[in-house]
Amino acid sequence: MNDERLLLAHGGGGRLSRELLRDVFLPRFRSGILARLEDAAVLEAPGERLAFTTDSYVVHPLFFPGGDIGRLAVFGTINDLAVMGAVPRYLSCGFILEEGFERAVLERILDSMRGAATEADVEVVTGDTKVVERGKADGLFLNTAGIGAVPRGVELGADRIRPGDKVLLSGGLGEHGLAVLTQREGLKFRSEIRSDCAPIHRLCADLLRASAPGGIRFFRDPTRGGLAATLNEAAAGRPWGIRIEEEAIPLREDVRGLCEILGLDPLHIANEGKLVAVAAPGEADRILQAMRANPLGARGAIIGEVVEKPAGRVVLRSAVGGLRILDLPAGEPLPRIC
Amino acid sequence: MNDERLLLAHGGGGRLSRELLRDVFLPRFRSGILARLEDAAVLEAPGERLAFTTDSYVVHPLFFPGGDIGRLAVFGTINDLAVMGAVPRYLSCGFILEEGFERAVLERILDSMRGAATEADVEVVTGDTKVVERGKADGLFLNTAGIGAVPRGVELGADRIRPGDKVLLSGGLGEHGLAVLTQREGLKFRSEIRSDCAPIHRLCADLLRASAPGGIRFFRDPTRGGLAATLNEAAAGRPWGIRIEEEAIPLREDVRGLCEILGLDPLHIANEGKLVAVAAPGEADRILQAMRANPLGARGAIIGEVVEKPAGRVVLRSAVGGLRILDLPAGEPLPRIC
Repeated sequence: MNDERLLLAHGGGGRLSRELLRDVFLPRFRSGILARLEDAAVLEAPGERLAFTTDSYVVHPLFFPGGDIGRLAVFGTINDLAVMGAVPRYLSCGFILEEGFERAVLERILDSMRGAATEADVEVVTGDTKVVERGKADGLFLNTAGIGAVPRGVELGADRIRPGDKVLLSGGLGEHGLAVLTQREGLKFRSEIRSDCAPIHRLCADLLRASAPGGIRFFRDPTRGGLAATLNEAAAGRPWGIRIEEEAIPLREDVRGLCEILGLDPLHIANEGKLVAVAAPGEADRILQAMRANPLGARGAIIGEVVEKPAGRVVLRSAVGGLRILDLPAGEPLPRIC
Repeated sequence: MNDERLLLAHGGGGRLSRELLRDVFLPRFRSGILARLEDAAVLEAPGERLAFTTDSYVVHPLFFPGGDIGRLAVFGTINDLAVMGAVPRYLSCGFILEEGFERAVLERILDSMRGAATEADVEVVTGDTKVVERGKADGLFLNTAGIGAVPRGVELGADRIRPGDKVLLSGGLGEHGLAVLTQREGLKFRSEIRSDCAPIHRLCADLLRASAPGGIRFFRDPTRGGLAATLNEAAAGRPWGIRIEEEAIPLREDVRGLCEILGLDPLHIANEGKLVAVAAPGEADRILQAMRANPLGARGAIIGEVVEKPAGRVVLRSAVGGLRILDLPAGEPLPRIC
């Protein structure tokens, strides 16, 4: 047995699988539920209503400025729960490893996941590991599913949005996508752009607390496809549209510059720690204040509003006043960004 | 755009992702929750206690006699919930697809998943799709996570097992593993062996109903590593052991013959629709009767019992009376079996 690299048998359900679990996985996730090693975790239901979500992560490379696939997988699933207004509680992890993957790299990723789970106060309660032959995967793919508790009275959804509502964004766009891209391509820049990879559930909770009941209509985190995809998905088929003020969108100078050089639109690039919120007009200022009081929303801004026309579309008003349609991109300009 | 094969952009979160979702995924899973296309499904908690589990599926080939990766992914996760005594309710699906994967094959697998979900009465409520470059995955990897409701009073676990308890098995071993192997290797045999891939939650419920409270100590489905791994995992570190009667183990004649030819031990081969149950001595006959009354348990048998010695081990008594240790295999003899 080669201790340094994973073998097919580490995914086989036998002795090597058990050793991997005991020596590598369990010491990192100190969960009494996980440690029972049952086929499923048995949990007290965290509330009357649950949020349930899943995402697979295939980001390449596995490590990038500001994060790695493990942090991304923990926070990404937390954020999908958070934008439904839920308090994230439990995570599952499914690993698909390529034969020959370095055990030390797996350990580094697991350490990162443990740190992320602790930071966000969620518990990894169940998991699974498979190993496929060399050349049949790309190192490591990771799936997380998550369960959260939706507090009483929290009702969010694009169907609650009305003309006149305000659109808020919690900070600068494009940082995650560019961080992965520069790492992948080996690009060097004076100002290193780091992924914004972060858990936004506490930011969401702060905003919900600051708002009158129903004052927040909708949350979403603008990941794959960027802000453009998020807003277009919200507006598609609705009897209202969204108008965004280009000048109001927070953007780091180095992100703006790099996007110009590379010919990328920051509105199409994935983020991993940003929040889009749509708020009732009378609540927007108070919610913005709460957003800015949280470090993850310090650069938050009202970036636009919900308009009656053009219904179902997103338009962007440029600095000089011109309007253009902001379309759903055909695909992510940067594949394997998450 | 090539309609017949998947592109990277189908996993990009933009227009092509949305079309794939709308045209291929949604029509097959008629869930009002899924159709909302939120970042997480919002569900009524199905009970006070939940079971939560995940598994990734990398089976090769994707289709085999008696099943395919889609059925396997639905039933496998259902079975992991079922053996905790839970009623399976909700599933998530995460797809990792290789660029160039045939859309028609994806549709066939989704049809199969829909059929499986309907048959087992579970709802697919949330999902995710990623596409990686050609050569970076092996066609399709699939993750399912699941939530079930654990009924009041149901408490199962290896820590409840006591010496004198009986070990029941619901039917013949080795059928799933051999079906995949013969398909993979193109082996031809007169009697085609089909995977036993099936949802066992109703069988579990039948047994729980038939038993006095606490009469069932433990359920498990003997998947990767086979019956040997399942029993060894249960016994490891316990103050009791398990003695199995080789003659009592149900086994199809063609499975026995093929295993002999290939030099495989059917006790180490994965099953995907079988149940191991440990029952209190006074309840075992009644539970066996209930098992045999369910088509999935028609060939069920009491195959052994829990003994005081050797503690922590599993021993097998052969037809002529010899005892041998039944060890945990080092790895699955057949990689990528699920």
